[in-house]
Amino acid sequence: MTEQVALFGPADPELRIVEDLVAKSIAKDPPEVARPLTELFAAGGKRIRPALVMLTAMCGSYDRDRTIPAAMAVEVTHAATLVHDDVIDRSPTRRGRPTVAATLGDEPAIVIGDFYFAKAYELAARTNTPEVVAILARAVMEICAGEVRQQSIRYRYSTSADEYMRRIEAKTATLLAACCDIGALLGGLDDAKRTALRSYGRLLGLAFQIADDVLDYTATEGEVGKPIGHDILEGFATLPLMLASIDLEDGRRPSENEARKVVDAVRNSDGPQRALDQARDHADAARSQLAGIDDGEAVSALAALAGYVVSRKL
Amino acid sequence: MTEQVALFGPADPELRIVEDLVAKSIAKDPPEVARPLTELFAAGGKRIRPALVMLTAMCGSYDRDRTIPAAMAVEVTHAATLVHDDVIDRSPTRRGRPTVAATLGDEPAIVIGDFYFAKAYELAARTNTPEVVAILARAVMEICAGEVRQQSIRYRYSTSADEYMRRIEAKTATLLAACCDIGALLGGLDDAKRTALRSYGRLLGLAFQIADDVLDYTATEGEVGKPIGHDILEGFATLPLMLASIDLEDGRRPSENEARKVVDAVRNSDGPQRALDQARDHADAARSQLAGIDDGEAVSALAALAGYVVSRKL
Repeated sequence: MTEQVALFGPADPELRIVEDLVAKSIAKDPPEVARPLTELFAAGGKRIRPALVMLTAMCGSYDRDRTIPAAMAVEVTHAATLVHDDVIDRSPTRRGRPTVAATLGDEPAIVIGDFYFAKAYELAARTNTPEVVAILARAVMEICAGEVRQQSIRYRYSTSADEYMRRIEAKTATLLAACCDIGALLGGLDDAKRTALRSYGRLLGLAFQIADDVLDYTATEGEVGKPIGHDILEGFATLPLMLASIDLEDGRRPSENEARKVVDAVRNSDGPQRALDQARDHADAARSQLAGIDDGEAVSALAALAGYVVSRKL
Repeated sequence: MTEQVALFGPADPELRIVEDLVAKSIAKDPPEVARPLTELFAAGGKRIRPALVMLTAMCGSYDRDRTIPAAMAVEVTHAATLVHDDVIDRSPTRRGRPTVAATLGDEPAIVIGDFYFAKAYELAARTNTPEVVAILARAVMEICAGEVRQQSIRYRYSTSADEYMRRIEAKTATLLAACCDIGALLGGLDDAKRTALRSYGRLLGLAFQIADDVLDYTATEGEVGKPIGHDILEGFATLPLMLASIDLEDGRRPSENEARKVVDAVRNSDGPQRALDQARDHADAARSQLAGIDDGEAVSALAALAGYVVSRKL
């Protein structure tokens, strides 16, 4: 799993086509909205969402004409959520570059996000499968409902690990589950396999997000592409902090100095390791969902992916 | 056309069903996102967009099962755009009530708007007609691209009437055209009739928006449900101001006192009347698009609607 190029097995060549088509499609959008997104995509990203659509579709009978626009749709949906997240979280950087909101202002960033949500649904419609649109739309609705709940508990650091799990369920697991559901649907898999792959996606998402939140503590700012301690400053406790049993005063934004001290204390605790253990448990549970899917390159890649998300350094 | 109840002819009973279903559907959404939208819908609105879907569908063979979710989708799309518009324009009131952004803050309003855009596409998918999703998504993309352009010319009051027409084309005409296109598609009309109805919707939208901008000068604050002179304060000149040949200094936000003086000067000029003449020309052009559509109650209602939008007092 050291070579990025082989990360998604049989989906890798298809993903290069997806990336190319997304870039070409955005290049045809009006320049006012296209420029910021071109930069966001050029800055990279893990492409895990379109990869999940591809690999789960390949678990059945792969229909390229419908799967490629679906993979484009989930990637563009993810980009749209990032553009709005960065308005809401006032994050200065994303993937090591200034956010759309930081560059152009909140108002254009809101509208550019709306444009790319719409583009995502338009791409989903190109599958000629209304259920793909519906699955994607319902996932976005869950993400949004979770986000509104989350905003109501900002600066309440004493929330429970249950609350954290609910948060990452909405924030990450929902869309990854939807990606697998869409792929399984387009691959023509039966209901039992579709349900198993959807569960795989959900559990992978939980593992992925916990590992991501661990990296926020263990990696350097340059490595993660956003400021260390940003979550704390924005009012959210993640699992490593919760498991480190470090108290932070509720109800107010901590100073940058306080946030830095908390980050150091978490780093020196067993919080990150214990959180990573939980991520691994979820990755194992994800892998076990693959038991009933016919063996093949795609299933192997999905199994390997579950290992990757909890072992990655970046 | 004095009775509100008979405004949309044969679509009126269907619209009551649409309203009821939208309200019931929102009531099932998570309370965090449902409450603000329930209030926005309870405050009323002209229902012109779902009415256009209905009436154009009724110009062909009316398929209730597909037309009702499409009508719901355009109404929810419109609501979602209003929620985001009110974040961007910092408008304190809408339909005479505090906006979602003013009540809950910008961050929740952004996410609640995203939720309702997603819900709209999910409703559109229920037509089981991917092209409905695509038409709606492309309309939203045009609206957004226009909005980003518009933000770049804020406080440039000396823009031309051409620029104003481009602005209202994106802001209003695009979605009304899409409503008619969707209805004509679902009604099974041929390409020529679909194109004519789409043009009708576009021209009706231009007439409607010009008349709306005239009302902003001629009606009272209580009547329009938002502050008089708001457009000027937010940096946009509308047609009545442009035709009144009143100069406003470019590049800065005027004071409330300056804005009030400009409003009074426009009211005392022939700007509103000349703008209304242009609205009537567009309404006439809209009506002329109906010539090739088979006569019937639905066509009569569409023709009457063109007269209504330029004669309404509110």
